[in-house]
Amino acid sequence: MDWKTTIRTVPDYPQPGIQFRDITPLLQHAQHFNAMVDALAAHYVHMPLDKIVAVEARGFIIGAALASKLRLGLALARKPGKLPAAHLSEHYHLEYGDDQLQIHTDAISAGERILLVDDLVATGGTARAAVRLIQRLGGQVAHAACVIALPDLGGMQQLQQQGIQVFALCAFDGH
Amino acid sequence: MDWKTTIRTVPDYPQPGIQFRDITPLLQHAQHFNAMVDALAAHYVHMPLDKIVAVEARGFIIGAALASKLRLGLALARKPGKLPAAHLSEHYHLEYGDDQLQIHTDAISAGERILLVDDLVATGGTARAAVRLIQRLGGQVAHAACVIALPDLGGMQQLQQQGIQVFALCAFDGH
Repeated sequence: MDWKTTIRTVPDYPQPGIQFRDITPLLQHAQHFNAMVDALAAHYVHMPLDKIVAVEARGFIIGAALASKLRLGLALARKPGKLPAAHLSEHYHLEYGDDQLQIHTDAISAGERILLVDDLVATGGTARAAVRLIQRLGGQVAHAACVIALPDLGGMQQLQQQGIQVFALCAFDGH
Repeated sequence: MDWKTTIRTVPDYPQPGIQFRDITPLLQHAQHFNAMVDALAAHYVHMPLDKIVAVEARGFIIGAALASKLRLGLALARKPGKLPAAHLSEHYHLEYGDDQLQIHTDAISAGERILLVDDLVATGGTARAAVRLIQRLGGQVAHAACVIALPDLGGMQQLQQQGIQVFALCAFDGH
């Protein structure tokens, strides 16, 4: 499957110079969406995993479908102000702007083996914030999955240097 | 399955007087999460459906898992400023505040039979905005699914008066 043909590139969104990689055409197409979930699930089906942590909001889509396919539970790494119970926060620097990620303190039990899921890994800032949240709760992050990697932005490499194996369905050059 | 025991009630969130129904404990628990997806899928597996439309953000979780289980495509009804390509907007009045919902104009083909998915139906304002978006694109909404219904707030009834059958895994009295 050539995943890149199923993804729409929108130039200069949300800022001039950014090539936005839009996965909505892939999600909307039943065969492509299900092939995507199947491809990710096939990669992880024999790995020892206890839970998926998905990053808001597009990561919820990939993470929930994958958790269902692998019969795992799903914990949420959310934008600020969305979690109603006791939670931890981590700041991160995004490709365009700054933000925070939060997780409920009861989302993960110590020692759980976590698969981190988002739609895209660029600079890896969001993913590293999620990793810090998971580790503060005693979770072990050995794997991260995404649909799209932008390796030129260095996030893949930084996660791998932290001992996290990143699996991406496809990669684009540049931004 | 007594779904209500898997849901956490947080009093006075996000505003005094609101009893927030938090599904994160349900999602985090592998058996409960998968039983939830299975229960929703069992309800729809024999119905003629072409696509799921999921409402941001918790609806993405339920919608994506269900789309994967039913082998359907997934279109997104998003908060403003998130969709990079041509889209439609609908305003709605929420239980606490006002907001907008948007959908890509290529998200649905005319005549497609849509299952609308969100985590919760309260006043139904969000769901009705999503229905208007779907209908403006020529889609047919005969079914809506949610985990939690708050029937006292009238949204279930209003959707049913529009000819939309709403299936909820559980219902809570009051707010």
